[in-house]
Amino acid sequence: MRAGNKSSALAGEVRAGNRRSLARALSLLIDETSESDALLQDFFPESGRAQKIGLSGPPGTGKSTLCGRLISHFRGQGLKVGVLAVDPTSPLTGGAFLGDRLRVQEHVSDEGVFMRSLGTRGMVGGVSQTIYGAIHALEAAGFSKIIVETVGTGQDEVSIAKVADTVAYVTTPQLGDEIQAMKAGVMEIGDIFVVNKADLGGKDKAVSDLRSALALGRGREAKPWEPPVIAVSAATGEGVPELGKILEAHWEYLQSSGEGRARLLAQHKEELSLYISRRLYRRALDRITSEDLERMLDHRSDPVSVARRILKPGRG
Amino acid sequence: MRAGNKSSALAGEVRAGNRRSLARALSLLIDETSESDALLQDFFPESGRAQKIGLSGPPGTGKSTLCGRLISHFRGQGLKVGVLAVDPTSPLTGGAFLGDRLRVQEHVSDEGVFMRSLGTRGMVGGVSQTIYGAIHALEAAGFSKIIVETVGTGQDEVSIAKVADTVAYVTTPQLGDEIQAMKAGVMEIGDIFVVNKADLGGKDKAVSDLRSALALGRGREAKPWEPPVIAVSAATGEGVPELGKILEAHWEYLQSSGEGRARLLAQHKEELSLYISRRLYRRALDRITSEDLERMLDHRSDPVSVARRILKPGRG
Repeated sequence: MRAGNKSSALAGEVRAGNRRSLARALSLLIDETSESDALLQDFFPESGRAQKIGLSGPPGTGKSTLCGRLISHFRGQGLKVGVLAVDPTSPLTGGAFLGDRLRVQEHVSDEGVFMRSLGTRGMVGGVSQTIYGAIHALEAAGFSKIIVETVGTGQDEVSIAKVADTVAYVTTPQLGDEIQAMKAGVMEIGDIFVVNKADLGGKDKAVSDLRSALALGRGREAKPWEPPVIAVSAATGEGVPELGKILEAHWEYLQSSGEGRARLLAQHKEELSLYISRRLYRRALDRITSEDLERMLDHRSDPVSVARRILKPGRG
Repeated sequence: MRAGNKSSALAGEVRAGNRRSLARALSLLIDETSESDALLQDFFPESGRAQKIGLSGPPGTGKSTLCGRLISHFRGQGLKVGVLAVDPTSPLTGGAFLGDRLRVQEHVSDEGVFMRSLGTRGMVGGVSQTIYGAIHALEAAGFSKIIVETVGTGQDEVSIAKVADTVAYVTTPQLGDEIQAMKAGVMEIGDIFVVNKADLGGKDKAVSDLRSALALGRGREAKPWEPPVIAVSAATGEGVPELGKILEAHWEYLQSSGEGRARLLAQHKEELSLYISRRLYRRALDRITSEDLERMLDHRSDPVSVARRILKPGRG
């Protein structure tokens, strides 16, 4: 049996709703095995079907709890929900894996929910490089809302904005200084700003501070989508239906304007660039000889000179 | 004036001990500007001169305070000390920058100490990709001990072990579970294990637990370097001179055995591979056409097919 046939059989099982096959396909795609190319090609035509919702924000803002609430909200609408959680947990630091988190636990046995924790391997800027393939698999399996929960630190190169259609940035009233610091980088990527833990008080000031900061950062011209600020309590469920409506409104905005297609194009570009550079990296590794390294050790050469030789045009 | 001349002038100032020039060279190298190649070539022949000491471990174990103590220790020996702190601080999360940290503050005006905080841009696995160039610049400027302080989360690909000659892994008696979790990944990379906060009690159990864990992980044959476990208190300074002696002993071991050269070779390989892959990523970006992306959007193509065309041999 050829690899292609094997992958197609697996892809067929994924499309038919087999969860174990989906879990296996995701593993192959995330780890980028020899079978993953065929899977990626099989699933890619389903890309762009689902709304990919990025949940971003500093640690401790209750993103996981909010994620659990959003799952319930979408399930109430009969939608299948996929969750990809970028988990900085490593053997070095310990910590909770997605499946152990209290608020999503209740959804584990729900056939309409699929959750997967992505490790930090191959991460650039907070998101796993191979998350795109995982998303295509979930789309092919009929998941129409895909929540990507990220770690809130140092996301730059492959930021959540290059993966998600809709970025919800989560903060809390307790993080007053955060909101100040946010101005620098997050204002531009957030489509929706969520003040969570509204039940703990201080939400009105937090919401108005955020709105002021957003107004300051905004140019004079009206934008087709002005990022709303909404207070919610993931703990009590307060505000979650409203957040659901805003998420839906943003999805409709993306579809009706050219913005949805523009974002998808940017996502494809990033997916493709990263795919190509991973291939090129392996090829480059193969080209480095022990002679190159010995010459560097003896200071007869340097990284720039060796790289120039290896990267010479015509050396494919 | 050609770029090459300009860089050489700057490099000359760095070698002459001009701190402002050093700061500027480091910025150019870390941000990888158009001038950085010439600088890298200029400084590379100094590579391998300094002992690069990696300070790793979970957050909250007092790595910065310990770093301050080690600076004082080395300064007492008349050695110039460079510190590169990988700082996960971003506009998203706020937090303390290196210069603000209490324990290193006292060294700010010392000409024999140079500290630099590296942002998280371009990080893979917890360490900035361009840290190698920064290290070469510090070596060229005569810094003979370079402390690389890392964030303790999810370091895999470019781990501290691929940057440092000597890895000191820092933990505390309070992190009992950490020590258990450590078994998975850190045992192999640590050359020295430091139980910090020894003044808070519980150090003897922590040290013996760690020694047991290390003994379990170890094979039957004696290794040329058995990682020692040492209790210190960065707060009081207790144990710091002993730690200094162990760091020196490891440096001597690296020099006298083949291990130092082997590690330097691995570091060069990583530096070169990452340098090449950054170039290749940009090249890949240049080769992607809007037609490619449009075809992907319309599902007439997919990342694998486009990449194969772009990567075709002979297309350098």
